[in-house]
Amino acid sequence: MNQNYIQPDNWSIIEEGFDPESVKSSESLFSIGNGAMGQRANFEENYTGATFQGSYIAGVYYPDKTRVGWWKNGYPEYFAKVLNAPNWIGIKVTINDEVLDLNACKKVEEFRRELNMKEGWYERTFTTTLQNDIQIEVASKRFLSLDIDEVGAIAYSIKPINNNATIKYLPYLDAGIENEDTNWEEKFWETIQIKAAGNQAFIVAKTLKTDFHACTFMQTELKLDGESLHLPTNVSEKSTEIAFHYSQEVNPNETFTIYKYGGYTVCSNHNKNELIAAAKKALQNATSLGFDTLLQNQKEAWAKIWEMADITIEGDVKAQQGIRFNIFQLNQTYLGKDSRLNIGPKGFTGEKYGGSTYWDTEAYCIPFYMTTKDQQVARNLLQYRYNHLEKAIENAEKLGFNNGAALYPMVTMNGEECHNEWEITFEEIHRNGAIAFAIFNYTRYTGDYSYIPEMGLEVMIGIARFWHQRATFSTAKDKYVILGVTGPNEYENNVNNNWYTNYIAQWCIKFAQENIQKVKQEYASDYERIMQKVRLSDQEISSWMEVAENMYFPRSEEYGVYLQQDGFLDKDLVSVADLDQKQRPINQKWSWDRILRSPYIKQADTLQGFYFFEDHFTTQELEKHFDFYEPFTVHESSLSPCVHSIQAAKLDKMDMAYTFYLRTSRLDLDDYNKEVEEGLHITSMAGTWMSIVEGFGGMRIKNDTLSFEPRIPWQWKGYSFKVNFRNHILKINVTHDGTTFELEKGNDLVILVDGIKVAVTPNNLVTVS
Amino acid sequence: MNQNYIQPDNWSIIEEGFDPESVKSSESLFSIGNGAMGQRANFEENYTGATFQGSYIAGVYYPDKTRVGWWKNGYPEYFAKVLNAPNWIGIKVTINDEVLDLNACKKVEEFRRELNMKEGWYERTFTTTLQNDIQIEVASKRFLSLDIDEVGAIAYSIKPINNNATIKYLPYLDAGIENEDTNWEEKFWETIQIKAAGNQAFIVAKTLKTDFHACTFMQTELKLDGESLHLPTNVSEKSTEIAFHYSQEVNPNETFTIYKYGGYTVCSNHNKNELIAAAKKALQNATSLGFDTLLQNQKEAWAKIWEMADITIEGDVKAQQGIRFNIFQLNQTYLGKDSRLNIGPKGFTGEKYGGSTYWDTEAYCIPFYMTTKDQQVARNLLQYRYNHLEKAIENAEKLGFNNGAALYPMVTMNGEECHNEWEITFEEIHRNGAIAFAIFNYTRYTGDYSYIPEMGLEVMIGIARFWHQRATFSTAKDKYVILGVTGPNEYENNVNNNWYTNYIAQWCIKFAQENIQKVKQEYASDYERIMQKVRLSDQEISSWMEVAENMYFPRSEEYGVYLQQDGFLDKDLVSVADLDQKQRPINQKWSWDRILRSPYIKQADTLQGFYFFEDHFTTQELEKHFDFYEPFTVHESSLSPCVHSIQAAKLDKMDMAYTFYLRTSRLDLDDYNKEVEEGLHITSMAGTWMSIVEGFGGMRIKNDTLSFEPRIPWQWKGYSFKVNFRNHILKINVTHDGTTFELEKGNDLVILVDGIKVAVTPNNLVTVS
Repeated sequence: MNQNYIQPDNWSIIEEGFDPESVKSSESLFSIGNGAMGQRANFEENYTGATFQGSYIAGVYYPDKTRVGWWKNGYPEYFAKVLNAPNWIGIKVTINDEVLDLNACKKVEEFRRELNMKEGWYERTFTTTLQNDIQIEVASKRFLSLDIDEVGAIAYSIKPINNNATIKYLPYLDAGIENEDTNWEEKFWETIQIKAAGNQAFIVAKTLKTDFHACTFMQTELKLDGESLHLPTNVSEKSTEIAFHYSQEVNPNETFTIYKYGGYTVCSNHNKNELIAAAKKALQNATSLGFDTLLQNQKEAWAKIWEMADITIEGDVKAQQGIRFNIFQLNQTYLGKDSRLNIGPKGFTGEKYGGSTYWDTEAYCIPFYMTTKDQQVARNLLQYRYNHLEKAIENAEKLGFNNGAALYPMVTMNGEECHNEWEITFEEIHRNGAIAFAIFNYTRYTGDYSYIPEMGLEVMIGIARFWHQRATFSTAKDKYVILGVTGPNEYENNVNNNWYTNYIAQWCIKFAQENIQKVKQEYASDYERIMQKVRLSDQEISSWMEVAENMYFPRSEEYGVYLQQDGFLDKDLVSVADLDQKQRPINQKWSWDRILRSPYIKQADTLQGFYFFEDHFTTQELEKHFDFYEPFTVHESSLSPCVHSIQAAKLDKMDMAYTFYLRTSRLDLDDYNKEVEEGLHITSMAGTWMSIVEGFGGMRIKNDTLSFEPRIPWQWKGYSFKVNFRNHILKINVTHDGTTFELEKGNDLVILVDGIKVAVTPNNLVTVS
Repeated sequence: MNQNYIQPDNWSIIEEGFDPESVKSSESLFSIGNGAMGQRANFEENYTGATFQGSYIAGVYYPDKTRVGWWKNGYPEYFAKVLNAPNWIGIKVTINDEVLDLNACKKVEEFRRELNMKEGWYERTFTTTLQNDIQIEVASKRFLSLDIDEVGAIAYSIKPINNNATIKYLPYLDAGIENEDTNWEEKFWETIQIKAAGNQAFIVAKTLKTDFHACTFMQTELKLDGESLHLPTNVSEKSTEIAFHYSQEVNPNETFTIYKYGGYTVCSNHNKNELIAAAKKALQNATSLGFDTLLQNQKEAWAKIWEMADITIEGDVKAQQGIRFNIFQLNQTYLGKDSRLNIGPKGFTGEKYGGSTYWDTEAYCIPFYMTTKDQQVARNLLQYRYNHLEKAIENAEKLGFNNGAALYPMVTMNGEECHNEWEITFEEIHRNGAIAFAIFNYTRYTGDYSYIPEMGLEVMIGIARFWHQRATFSTAKDKYVILGVTGPNEYENNVNNNWYTNYIAQWCIKFAQENIQKVKQEYASDYERIMQKVRLSDQEISSWMEVAENMYFPRSEEYGVYLQQDGFLDKDLVSVADLDQKQRPINQKWSWDRILRSPYIKQADTLQGFYFFEDHFTTQELEKHFDFYEPFTVHESSLSPCVHSIQAAKLDKMDMAYTFYLRTSRLDLDDYNKEVEEGLHITSMAGTWMSIVEGFGGMRIKNDTLSFEPRIPWQWKGYSFKVNFRNHILKINVTHDGTTFELEKGNDLVILVDGIKVAVTPNNLVTVS
């Protein structure tokens, strides 16, 4: 790990003491979001030190021109950039006309941040002495409302300590913001209208090219020692900014507070010309409740989320803090309310990666949402891809495929491919497999087969057609091969016969074929409708099956393992343990060509296949592959340690499983990858959740039955989690003495525990030891 | 071929008739250059139609910021861009105050361009009727002086036909030019000083970042019907431009002529603060001779070049025109006078590719210059790489190599890597092999071994060290493999065991080892000096040899051929002939991933190895490989058809050899690759020369003896060429009746003709039939 300043706490993320070096890191870690918007933990007052400003609106993006030396056919036309949105949290503060700026104060003491995950708020307090020797106490608390998700609220207070002082608050809106990450240093926003009315202000701005219109708004209230204060609202306006000016003489130990309500109304939810009206309504809803009631509602809303999603860990505060941080951030990013949205790799905490949707959603996030929310949430995520099927077919056509073959994008906002990374992303066609797998995974877990005849089958057919066309018959091997791909391990590029890709391609075809038969037999009218649309003949299905049944898989008989790709054994097979530690992380120390020819694996690749298809292999086979590949895995992708943690637990390598668990759960808190400043790794947080539920808990579905093989790290006293399985809510509590199962909702349920059938009945706590 | 408007002519490139669609193509084809500068055939007068303006100064470049999605270690820091230089040819013309602009005239008749290759000038004539109904005849002739290579001259005349007219000439200098090709739309030049003095004007400008200072200058003279005319010189100046204004009332059939002398003086040849003085001196030298004498000198200088370099072809005007166009353009680009310069892929005819030096120099250009010039020219080209050895070692260090391993850049201006094409160029390490091969080729041909102890051995040691470190021992194969490369065929990327690369790597090590022994024995003091510097032990050499002697070569026993790379036979081996012609060229019709997994070969790859090392293989082996690879070769690189032409001739496939010869020699004239607008393919023109001398002429060196196996296409009556072999100038004349050898310079020479020894003596024409 590379940092260690976050205070261990079961429910909060806490920083104590002011360190300018940690500001950008903490801005990421203390980020808040409510599914509709989010923001980095930037200071409200001015700050001239190093900072990374960020405020984001879900679904609002900019199609940045891509950067490439020489364009080639098939490259995406744009890179969808997560947009830094207009700022509404800003409050410029002056104390006797000196600007409050923590980078310029004489002293900063008792600086403390807390992100209270249980209740969903962020607080910052400090005492500071300005250059003018005025000493003040500052407290700021803010949250983004889960209930009224267009609104956030801030309570910002200053108390002079050693002298009276003229305190000026200049709350402002600023639409003149820029992205840190821009390919061509362009501006993304254009201001359309600025308006003030009483203690309310509005800026309507639109994104260039994508033409998203958003109204950024604010309303202010003032109090002095808890009593409402009515000062005149002086307004100043610039071309992209509007500010209110309030000035108050404050005595020592009096507290001058400004409440600022703000947020966004966006054209995806309102008419473009009604954004200010919508903003007024949102403000009316929020301010009529007031800060305290809004906050109380916030606590209750989060309590509801935690009720289902919480995982407790006893006897290991850092592990407990880690898992809650992961669950909290996932829920801050995506709540499943809006089926047009998805889960971006950095959520609302940074700009990196762009796009909102990667294969991460299907491979990592769906299990989390499927298990901790109503199954409709996971269904929405599946439907998101169904809605993009036409675009996936167009994308495949651009690359030379036909007949309805679908290639889903690696990175997308609206179904179009929009990545920015030719050398890696371009050939990662394996993503298509995860999208089909998620359909399988969803129906397996929820038992809701209806998704397949309604929507899923069309997706599966498009994907099967793609794999069929993408495979090449090798006369030399007398098998079908898949040439020129990049597997999940992005430290390889343009390899032949990546085992994971070939395996999932074969599986996709078989899965499609099986379901075509099933739908034909059981959902005749859906079958008719679909066949009308896709024009699929038995002959075509046979040609798919010819490919699937004759797929080539690289294998080493010597090692008894499938090979990650053709030629893997030609590499210089020095294990990571034998690599000079000064060479790590290799993505920062080594040239790209050296990484490519090395055996080092960025993230689970062959093992990702063993994770998805564990029941296709024996535990001995899993162990063989784990023991072969783990020593070459550098885990320089956030998506890697969780899979290894799950498999290590399965293989009873509990110390390893625990180490990987810490690495995945505290990846950002302890900054393992030296990049937390850029934002959090949101999607891999679902992997953390899996590493407990599927790893230590050993949760699987076996023949329609929920099964567990509970294990517990010796470092813990116990842990518990809940799952929503086919409308049963089951709480699992694991200790060294045994495991208890409690059915909180639903009818009698038969589960498997370590292979033994156990009946769980409402109100009847079952203990297995 | 894609165009057919160039008139066949033995000595000139001729266009007749005005077609706005062909302007950009002709601007490339009629380009002129003198080794020190060059320019596209842009019109002197204004032109509002589609045009690609270009004027270039040898060795002046701009380090453009590279464009890449996400940066990776080892990527070049900049892309050296060929710079469009300030324009000195411009003459704005008005006729009765109407601007002369061929895009706006009522009629353009008798439009004709001629590039006279024999004499080295470019002429354009036309008759036009303006919107004001004035009809005029215009004639413009210009050339860039070979003798005074900082100067060019233009004679521009207008004769009114149907009426008298006020003709205004506004000759100007313009430093406000931009590149068409810029990664970030930046300006590259900054104007420092503008100065007029009498009929002379000067603009000193410097390139941003690289700080090249150049003075662009002009001087004018006027004549009316051949009589000097002294009009007042009115001057107008803008921030980056200066113009003279001359106005004259001209009667019908009177000719009003402006002579414009212009060019560049550059800080690489003069002190920065003496550029204007140097320009004045250059102008003085030129104008004291006057246009006609300068032109006479130009004819004589070109006659001298042709005397040695010409290749005649009888009975096939298009073939004759093609080869002369290639020889002419090569000599316009590089004359071997300045050892700091090299041969850019587009010479002075366009901006594409950037950089001045590719492996093209060693693989294609050196044989041409070595054979048609004094051997010092080829030695200069070799020394260019010796001068860059330290940079090549630094470049290798950036990629993780050590101990003096040298990796030469794929694209360079000053020894630093500066390419712009990650997906292809990054792994083309085979370039290192061509650089060593050129040393071998030079010593083999010239007999000048002294280059090796003086400079070449150090280069060879650096290269051998690179290959030794770059190879990986594969336990699985019990051989050394070279992983993750791109061979000469740029339609593959990141392949393992590219046969060409592995073969040349092995050869480089053996060649270095042999020469270390030879220098040790025969050049003891050089050996001592070198060993002092490179610290090379016998043990290290042994470890090199271990790699060389155990190198792995992919091979198919079934086909009896070496495989281009591991896994080549897994591809869908449909020959180019069976490919739908609508899919061609695949680099314009197919997506990049589809190209990568196809079997199609952009340019000779395995066959490039057979070209370099022909004497390592039997003719039967060559034929087997030619027959295997040629059917998959799409020749979408300009460097491809020449090699296939040479090998087809060797294999007596004369029709094929002839077709490839036309394709290489008329690549630009007939625009085979649909891109001549962007500039000419200069370096491949040396390949055209090789396809006659080495292809049809069958010239080789066998055991220090010059040998020929002459063949003649049935389409030709005869052809002749000259070679400078070890200070013998030998003229070879091939007809269907036999071949004559004439020694124009040098002592008695024994050569091999079709394997039979033939003695050639001065003044004794030897005929072999």
